[in-house]
Amino acid sequence: MQTVSESVIKAALEVTLLPGVGSLSQSRISKALPDISEFFSMDDASLAALGISTEATALLHSRAYRATATEIYDWGIHEGCQFLIRGNPGYPPLLEEIFAPPLVLYARGRLEVLGMPCVAVVGTRRPTIYGLQMAQGIASDLGSLGICVVSGLARGIDGAAHRGCLEGGGRTIAVLGCGIDIVYPREHRQLTKSVLENGLLLTEFAPGTSPSPQNFPVRNRIISGLALGTLIIEASEYSGSLITARLAMEQNREVFALPGNLTSTQSFGPNFLIKQGAKLIQSWRDIIEELPPEIRQEILIKEDSRPSRKPELGLLSDEESRLLELLKTDETTQFDKIFSMSNLSVSRLSDLLLNLEMSGRVRQLPGNLYVKIRI
Amino acid sequence: MQTVSESVIKAALEVTLLPGVGSLSQSRISKALPDISEFFSMDDASLAALGISTEATALLHSRAYRATATEIYDWGIHEGCQFLIRGNPGYPPLLEEIFAPPLVLYARGRLEVLGMPCVAVVGTRRPTIYGLQMAQGIASDLGSLGICVVSGLARGIDGAAHRGCLEGGGRTIAVLGCGIDIVYPREHRQLTKSVLENGLLLTEFAPGTSPSPQNFPVRNRIISGLALGTLIIEASEYSGSLITARLAMEQNREVFALPGNLTSTQSFGPNFLIKQGAKLIQSWRDIIEELPPEIRQEILIKEDSRPSRKPELGLLSDEESRLLELLKTDETTQFDKIFSMSNLSVSRLSDLLLNLEMSGRVRQLPGNLYVKIRI
Repeated sequence: MQTVSESVIKAALEVTLLPGVGSLSQSRISKALPDISEFFSMDDASLAALGISTEATALLHSRAYRATATEIYDWGIHEGCQFLIRGNPGYPPLLEEIFAPPLVLYARGRLEVLGMPCVAVVGTRRPTIYGLQMAQGIASDLGSLGICVVSGLARGIDGAAHRGCLEGGGRTIAVLGCGIDIVYPREHRQLTKSVLENGLLLTEFAPGTSPSPQNFPVRNRIISGLALGTLIIEASEYSGSLITARLAMEQNREVFALPGNLTSTQSFGPNFLIKQGAKLIQSWRDIIEELPPEIRQEILIKEDSRPSRKPELGLLSDEESRLLELLKTDETTQFDKIFSMSNLSVSRLSDLLLNLEMSGRVRQLPGNLYVKIRI
Repeated sequence: MQTVSESVIKAALEVTLLPGVGSLSQSRISKALPDISEFFSMDDASLAALGISTEATALLHSRAYRATATEIYDWGIHEGCQFLIRGNPGYPPLLEEIFAPPLVLYARGRLEVLGMPCVAVVGTRRPTIYGLQMAQGIASDLGSLGICVVSGLARGIDGAAHRGCLEGGGRTIAVLGCGIDIVYPREHRQLTKSVLENGLLLTEFAPGTSPSPQNFPVRNRIISGLALGTLIIEASEYSGSLITARLAMEQNREVFALPGNLTSTQSFGPNFLIKQGAKLIQSWRDIIEELPPEIRQEILIKEDSRPSRKPELGLLSDEESRLLELLKTDETTQFDKIFSMSNLSVSRLSDLLLNLEMSGRVRQLPGNLYVKIRI
């Protein structure tokens, strides 16, 4: 997989080490230069046009960080850390689409998980039992269905999401707010090891970077940026998870949220997000439904072939069976038409249609139209 | 208020007593005949055109139910029961708009509450403590703000809604699934008395009608039909409250739902409705926001004049104050523009804007536009 040349990796590492060259400048540079190693032979005028300060220009001309970049590269080769460079093979395509993607990603573990459809599951570091159980349960469902669960390896919901996914036999990506050589929080030492074996650790921070608070919002854009959608499990009013949700919206990704009692401060965030348009989820199905058709299709086929997880379709009453016969799977039928065919009262008919809808047999479409779901 | 003539009332009562003349026929009749008393002098052809069966035609010609209608009328005069006749003064205008409104409504209590803006609060007869407390609390808030709370006087959520509204000093309407002379359920004897004194009992069922199960869905359309919107507090998968919600949608009224933990079967219904497009509510404000502008305005003015209930706007940090100064109340500002004016990082700016949004100072509009809320 590692088809990127040593010179490109080292040049990219050196760029990220230059003071004042943040993600915005990195983004501008990698957009302008398909081959990042050309950066160091640019003239001052071109560098200035890219917004590089005179201070940084002097440092790049003197190659002040060349040795450090080489040191990091050698460390990586020795420690099994790989380097994903923007615009080069192996870099996650969905991440290329976000605003100012990082030039370098440090990666440890199974790089192939980057090819899987990803869903982020995040939330507060101070969850309730309800939040923990839901995070773990839904992540387990997603993992077992072949969805890679992305989270931030933080205490609370993040940890439960990684754990649940692994328990479901799935793959998971942990995006760190520190260097890839640092285990944080300490109590996640064992979990980190499991993620390494069955998934991937990712970070844009250089080795040795400590997990300081300002890193986390920066890190969060990678979590949402890797994923087709982000599920917020629990988040109080000022939780960073709400920022992750907002980032996902700005990145045109799906936002999912777990509803919860108003009396729980941890459910304030998800409830608020739902009010703002996030999709309320009652099970993994509500997530799968919003994924691109080809991915959704594949997952549902997989799901159907596992007898233990077949959708729980209860037996139909005679009345329901007769009603279902009036509906078509390939064509909608107007409520009024069903009404006149059914010989039922309006209220009884509404009642039955709602039951059939809730049991996944019928779908209501705008305009009071009904269609039978092919099972 | 009772400006409808005795003959019109008696004629309307007689129509509702005819066998086979249900709400659909009643609706057709009252639409065709502004003066319902003309009904009994119609010729057979015109009656047939209205869909009246030959059996009913014979009975109406023989005036088989004239005596019973007179009896009910006299009983009403004696017992303080009033009659609201569709198409006549005093009949609730919002109810005129629904599909097949009842020709006759029996009413006891304060008729003037029909002039108030109404919101329905309904739910399961087997609620959780959470559901009961929320129903009571939100109904109390609505009542104290001058919103009349409509419900079905059933055990559980309905009872809590009526009680809460009365505790808040508000007015409430109980719509019955039985005759107005019947107290059901028995344990709501005291509550029924309070509703009579501080609100209104309404039903379309003739005196003496017992509360049989098939009456409730019919009754539910009146609950949602009287209200600008319906709030579903708790409802399990097969609850009648889901029918009420569906009816409200079909009547083009707002549907509100209280979110709850997925682990609570009673929250299945509201969560499901939110997924289908009902508005998740976190407080009475989320309900008021969706009411027609003139009603909303009046309530918010009332609310502002009560110091104890002022919106809890926390103190702003210096950073937040500076950011607010960049925004306008009468014009939207693009995120990018705020970003370039603010000297903040993208993530810090997103963070602050979200906080300001959650504390009700700022509103985000589609297209990443922001506007300051006038306080």
